[in-house]
Amino acid sequence: MIGRLNHVAIAVRDLGAATAVYRDTLGAHVSQPQALPEHGVTVVFIELPNTKIELLEPLGEASPIARFLEKNPDGGMHHICYEVDDILATRDQLKQTGARVLGDGEPKIGAHGKPVLFLHPKDFSGTLVELEQV
Amino acid sequence: MIGRLNHVAIAVRDLGAATAVYRDTLGAHVSQPQALPEHGVTVVFIELPNTKIELLEPLGEASPIARFLEKNPDGGMHHICYEVDDILATRDQLKQTGARVLGDGEPKIGAHGKPVLFLHPKDFSGTLVELEQV
Repeated sequence: MIGRLNHVAIAVRDLGAATAVYRDTLGAHVSQPQALPEHGVTVVFIELPNTKIELLEPLGEASPIARFLEKNPDGGMHHICYEVDDILATRDQLKQTGARVLGDGEPKIGAHGKPVLFLHPKDFSGTLVELEQV
Repeated sequence: MIGRLNHVAIAVRDLGAATAVYRDTLGAHVSQPQALPEHGVTVVFIELPNTKIELLEPLGEASPIARFLEKNPDGGMHHICYEVDDILATRDQLKQTGARVLGDGEPKIGAHGKPVLFLHPKDFSGTLVELEQV
């Protein structure tokens, strides 16, 4: 059902410093920062040959990663995103197994302009899982 | 400098239950469990089209993930592994930038039979980074 690993998201307190580490210390190709006010984050994409890392810095008052950074002041891995072909069919199958879909259960348009859903970490080994329809 | 994302490791308390979620709920291809006593873990590989997820369950008294699971009873993302061509050259460059290499700084043979090093989470946005020479 799940396909490629679309990205791993890392919440960071200081996007400039985190980007410099990936660009200068680890020698990776990094994008320009993009402010996504509707998602409450500013994001930098680390482009790897087979997938990408997303560095997320809180943007605005209601950022979804603000509380995570309160608990994890150094930052840390925030979620993992798997690709699916049909997000509604996947959601319905998951719900039949008892897995909890966050929010109202309806896909939202994610940071890449595609439909996404988030699944409850308690159902996935303490890992926040995003599904993205590609 | 860094290349492909080799894997994301997720520490789990109950490998059988976590494997069933990936196999049955998420429909992924999962390997048989492999006990790696020299690494203090039992591992299941989730094979995705572009990379893999490693589910790690503690094995033995001195498991490196036992303390992580004390802090994160539901489990969670434990580390991320990037591939490098030359682990010694990479290590020396990283040390010049002030990044801290864990342990004695010498590569060990990792779970895939290849040289690996771990880098201090405080230097990488709270994320434990493994480097694997491929």
